[in-house]
Amino acid sequence: MTRVFNFSPGPATLPEAVLRQAADEMLDWHGSGMSVMEMSHRGKEFIGIHAEAESLLRELMGIPASYKVLFMQGGAIGENAIVPMNLIGKTGSADYVNTGEWSKKSLKEAKTYGKVSIAASGEASNFTAIPKQSEWKLDPNASYVHICSNETIGGVEYHWTPDTGAVPLVADMSSNILSRPIDVSKYGLIYAGAQKNMGPSGLTVVIVREDLMGHALPITPSAFNYKTQADADSMYNTPPTYAIYIAGLVLKHVKERGGMAAMQEHNRAKAKVLYDYLDQSRFFSNSVARDDRSLMNVPFQLRDAALDEAFLKGAQAKGMIQLKGHRVVGGMRASIYNAMPIEGVRALVQYMKEFEQQHG
Amino acid sequence: MTRVFNFSPGPATLPEAVLRQAADEMLDWHGSGMSVMEMSHRGKEFIGIHAEAESLLRELMGIPASYKVLFMQGGAIGENAIVPMNLIGKTGSADYVNTGEWSKKSLKEAKTYGKVSIAASGEASNFTAIPKQSEWKLDPNASYVHICSNETIGGVEYHWTPDTGAVPLVADMSSNILSRPIDVSKYGLIYAGAQKNMGPSGLTVVIVREDLMGHALPITPSAFNYKTQADADSMYNTPPTYAIYIAGLVLKHVKERGGMAAMQEHNRAKAKVLYDYLDQSRFFSNSVARDDRSLMNVPFQLRDAALDEAFLKGAQAKGMIQLKGHRVVGGMRASIYNAMPIEGVRALVQYMKEFEQQHG
Repeated sequence: MTRVFNFSPGPATLPEAVLRQAADEMLDWHGSGMSVMEMSHRGKEFIGIHAEAESLLRELMGIPASYKVLFMQGGAIGENAIVPMNLIGKTGSADYVNTGEWSKKSLKEAKTYGKVSIAASGEASNFTAIPKQSEWKLDPNASYVHICSNETIGGVEYHWTPDTGAVPLVADMSSNILSRPIDVSKYGLIYAGAQKNMGPSGLTVVIVREDLMGHALPITPSAFNYKTQADADSMYNTPPTYAIYIAGLVLKHVKERGGMAAMQEHNRAKAKVLYDYLDQSRFFSNSVARDDRSLMNVPFQLRDAALDEAFLKGAQAKGMIQLKGHRVVGGMRASIYNAMPIEGVRALVQYMKEFEQQHG
Repeated sequence: MTRVFNFSPGPATLPEAVLRQAADEMLDWHGSGMSVMEMSHRGKEFIGIHAEAESLLRELMGIPASYKVLFMQGGAIGENAIVPMNLIGKTGSADYVNTGEWSKKSLKEAKTYGKVSIAASGEASNFTAIPKQSEWKLDPNASYVHICSNETIGGVEYHWTPDTGAVPLVADMSSNILSRPIDVSKYGLIYAGAQKNMGPSGLTVVIVREDLMGHALPITPSAFNYKTQADADSMYNTPPTYAIYIAGLVLKHVKERGGMAAMQEHNRAKAKVLYDYLDQSRFFSNSVARDDRSLMNVPFQLRDAALDEAFLKGAQAKGMIQLKGHRVVGGMRASIYNAMPIEGVRALVQYMKEFEQQHG
């Protein structure tokens, strides 16, 4: 068996140790005589798995007791509707900061449920930079301010925490959750699809300050009502049990590796290898403002786009896959989440050097 | 390793062969060098897995070409809202047949999105029988008529297909899909959470006649809009990829076992073992009308409820778990889906006999 270096933006590579454990436990979890997939969500075995996953997430991220952790069905695109359904009703309006494709999806979806204002936009820079806080026009009457903390497609990331005063800050952290320490208390709500740094697709984690719940619009489906789910410990409906189990294994693995500080160091080191090479190359380039570069998703261009196909084919032959960039930005993209080892990034840079020598 | 007989109503027991294959393929699916969990949903490997699952479902259920098959995020409780969001807008109203707990959940949720009429109710029989078609009061102007084809909690099941004329019939088949042949062309829409007969929780299959799409209410989230998902082959958002993979393995397994006709024979034989014993026992009883008894979920009562705990404890000691009935009906419930072998039902009846001899 040869494992590839998988640079997919999500679903994405997972720690091999986690997959080994999942395989070992597939038919008989801890002597229970069944797979986690077969367990009743109301049984003591799964309730324990669920509680441990929550407890690990709380510990790793330092989530205050005044926040609920919800394990919801679905992904971030669904949550783009569910967030305004639950929160925008307080005042009827919300501020959105537009930093690229995922911000645009979020704000477009929110317009169905209330008045949406663009507090700031990276459009002038073609979304290669995060608008500086001094340029933001915030509405003190907004129900919340929404950001995307890392744009998976454009490759821009907040390396600072916005100050939104008394208005709660809401962040889509799908593609950089668990990648570094953050101060949860500075956010009103954090949500993240699991399929980048946490586990399989089909699970969305929502971390919500308790006082923000209770303003759901009447059209909110019960299964997507944060208050209803919080009151039922995320078990108002059947949760995506196997995805929660895998997320729990990933969280345990992250803890064993040293937690958020260690992840940050690991991710900085990996990204540095790639960005340092890009910055000295005359053949490859990355156009994102240096202060706003993502440590998770690194888009890059070849000088001659006609060579894109050859580059991808050569990478595939060396066991490096899913490097094709999103059509919106073109070129290449290397997604280097927590579970991508530094060896994968080094192998990529080595291949890029060879390709540059051959074609540059 | 000893596998238990797991009578959980869902998530539920899965075929051991499927779990073995999933374990074997966990780190390296078909030489791809990655787990299915790690695959981009846009990559050729997962697109193939997704297409095969759909093709197997179409073949097994005989789904006509004029129906779309959607693999959606979530479960049936979410779908209880998503169905009316998508369909009730045509005329603004819908008919619901109330046959128990799951019907009630569905119709309660639908009221948020339009006018809901109760076309028939099993309330008079305390939901131990399906109301006969002759008693139904159907509104020819309804957007659809909703039924729950098998009540997981109450243990009543339709063994006939309602005739709703020109009004489309919508069925929640979560707990009896794939258990027997059905004529899909008699339904406008069928939906089913996967976690009983198809796979892990977190996946809902929707089979919808094409002409019924396109009436979604403006408040429908994009990710839950059937037309949007159908136009994108269920990939408008990231689907629950691993759950779809497991469902595909289950479908392949069902096909190998002989398809729907073989499942029906298998399920009838299993249920007969249990109902035959219940009908001659003076200690255990089932109160559902004979014609409407579920082949999937068999609730039963002990003559003396004070013995419930002892019964459950003894069952657990013999490796038979999750037999406790839902609090609404009390007593016991044996869920005997496709993947429950007849040996499991025989073992249960053997234990019941012994328990009756001891305590009867």
